[in-house]
Amino acid sequence: MKLLSKTVENIEKVSIDSDGNIKNRFNSLAIPSGSLGRLEELATIYASIKRSPDATIRHKVVFTMAGDHGVSSEGVSTFQQEVTRQMVQNFLDGGATISVLSQHVGARVVVVDCGVNADFIPVDGLKIKKVGYGTGNIARGPAMSREQAIRSLEVGIEVFNEELPNGIDIIATGDMGIANTTPSSAIIACLTGADLKNVTGRGTGLDDVGVEKKINTVKTALDVNKPDSSDPIDILSKVGGFEIGSIAGLCLAAASHRTPVLIDGFISTAAALIACAIEPKVNDYLISSHTSTENGHKIALEKLQKKAILNLDLRLGEGTGAALAMSLIEAAVKTLTQMATFSEAKVSIPCLKK
Amino acid sequence: MKLLSKTVENIEKVSIDSDGNIKNRFNSLAIPSGSLGRLEELATIYASIKRSPDATIRHKVVFTMAGDHGVSSEGVSTFQQEVTRQMVQNFLDGGATISVLSQHVGARVVVVDCGVNADFIPVDGLKIKKVGYGTGNIARGPAMSREQAIRSLEVGIEVFNEELPNGIDIIATGDMGIANTTPSSAIIACLTGADLKNVTGRGTGLDDVGVEKKINTVKTALDVNKPDSSDPIDILSKVGGFEIGSIAGLCLAAASHRTPVLIDGFISTAAALIACAIEPKVNDYLISSHTSTENGHKIALEKLQKKAILNLDLRLGEGTGAALAMSLIEAAVKTLTQMATFSEAKVSIPCLKK
Repeated sequence: MKLLSKTVENIEKVSIDSDGNIKNRFNSLAIPSGSLGRLEELATIYASIKRSPDATIRHKVVFTMAGDHGVSSEGVSTFQQEVTRQMVQNFLDGGATISVLSQHVGARVVVVDCGVNADFIPVDGLKIKKVGYGTGNIARGPAMSREQAIRSLEVGIEVFNEELPNGIDIIATGDMGIANTTPSSAIIACLTGADLKNVTGRGTGLDDVGVEKKINTVKTALDVNKPDSSDPIDILSKVGGFEIGSIAGLCLAAASHRTPVLIDGFISTAAALIACAIEPKVNDYLISSHTSTENGHKIALEKLQKKAILNLDLRLGEGTGAALAMSLIEAAVKTLTQMATFSEAKVSIPCLKK
Repeated sequence: MKLLSKTVENIEKVSIDSDGNIKNRFNSLAIPSGSLGRLEELATIYASIKRSPDATIRHKVVFTMAGDHGVSSEGVSTFQQEVTRQMVQNFLDGGATISVLSQHVGARVVVVDCGVNADFIPVDGLKIKKVGYGTGNIARGPAMSREQAIRSLEVGIEVFNEELPNGIDIIATGDMGIANTTPSSAIIACLTGADLKNVTGRGTGLDDVGVEKKINTVKTALDVNKPDSSDPIDILSKVGGFEIGSIAGLCLAAASHRTPVLIDGFISTAAALIACAIEPKVNDYLISSHTSTENGHKIALEKLQKKAILNLDLRLGEGTGAALAMSLIEAAVKTLTQMATFSEAKVSIPCLKK
């Protein structure tokens, strides 16, 4: 709890371009004013978080957090629980989507076992920080104890802090955990007040009957556990997940080190909502990477007041959408830092003709 | 004309995944079916054009085509004509947005003088293929002769063919030409039948009075020149531009060599409409990279039946949106070619639970 409270205490609000230097720099570039659209907006957020219009991006890190979920025994996913372990191995072997996309954008991947129901042999690229061997079945009781919820948050903080000496300029969040859209729906429902049918989706590919059953499972989980919607740690412990708590912890840790966070899809956004409920200032550091097709993701993004960068109909998790968006943030930052100004390029400035 | 007709003759229709091999490959990957969303769609288009699910991307080329426009003397842009020359120099010096973004995505830039109203000293990275020293003022008469229109198309074909030995797997189109949204609006109006006020926008930053004047200029250009909407070369000669014709020629050349083309914004899309009017099969090779905020771009994309990849509120041209989208196409292709299958990764395949 000490690590958590200390981390939260260190989070400052971000003042967007407080001295106008970023806007001045963009206005001096040899382009029509405003023509870079969202690239200007994204570079401004990045530079404001870093408090410098000269801030560059060298170290990009994707954290893919894995955990298992007792609720998978309710048949809420098309995949069996053992796939979580198998996919963690696939991440480490470099054959997964996040492996390929991270390499494409030049990011390193840190895989974290936050609570997979299996033991891994320690290898490079894997951090073993097990909070438990899968959560409890939320349709029958709580996912975890309050102590475990705090521990899962601190796992996220620990892995960020451990990686910091290797260089971190920006991070992307990612998740792996069979059945983890179910606790995410429960969390989003608690924190947005949205109707369950609007925040519960097909996950890995449920049909209509499967979705109906999943909605009932989420409803049962909320009825059985009665999470206190004003207490994010209670929500996390009652209907959350180990990797979800750790992603929330990552957001807090990154914010405490003035590091921008690219939020991936549905599960990461549920975790971001937890982090923001713990400390609202963390939201200043969050950038929404993409809109997932998972039902309810838009509602969660609206709660965070974020507009996603990409709309590619992804619904995979792992950090895949965030990794792709990371490259666009980098592109945006490069326009701010590497382009020639009107005077450097000897380009005549425009006059507004009528 | 011989080069043009020979190029057009060589364009074949693209059969999307004719033998089902691409779909089979995606279905074998260790991910939930369909979870890659538009990445799967984009990789399928790329591999279908290349007729191989194993096709990779090594050589990415951005062609930024420059030309001047006599209509700039009507005050339809906030920039003076000399800025076209200055920006070409900025491209060559590496300080422009397209320079920075192309380097970011690992593409090489080929800058082409299709008809700038100035002479350049020959340097690496610049092709001098001048059709004229700027077009005629379309508000008073034709932009160019029919022979020049054909020549501008052939310039696009020539530069593609000349670059081919250096390696081209995919291209992005780009433009530079002060006042070139004005002829683009005229072209789009001719080829879509849309009302002028719906396809004429702020360009580099006109105010409402400026836009009103620009709409009147486009109307005058159409009234004075009466382009034959069934003859794309007539449209190009009456109300087009040298760089616009060359971008259309590039599209034709790329298609004739089964090379995908990322269409940039408003001007490139106007050029793509010309290319498709010359030979409809070329559309199979076109991928729309982004939706510009320029008024009318969406109408032009609808005519091409394309859905853009990015929505970043860009309105810069140069090939900037296309360069960014190029990196996403590459990411998509890598998912198809580099990821592990269920059996390779030893991941259990899902069953549809009810």
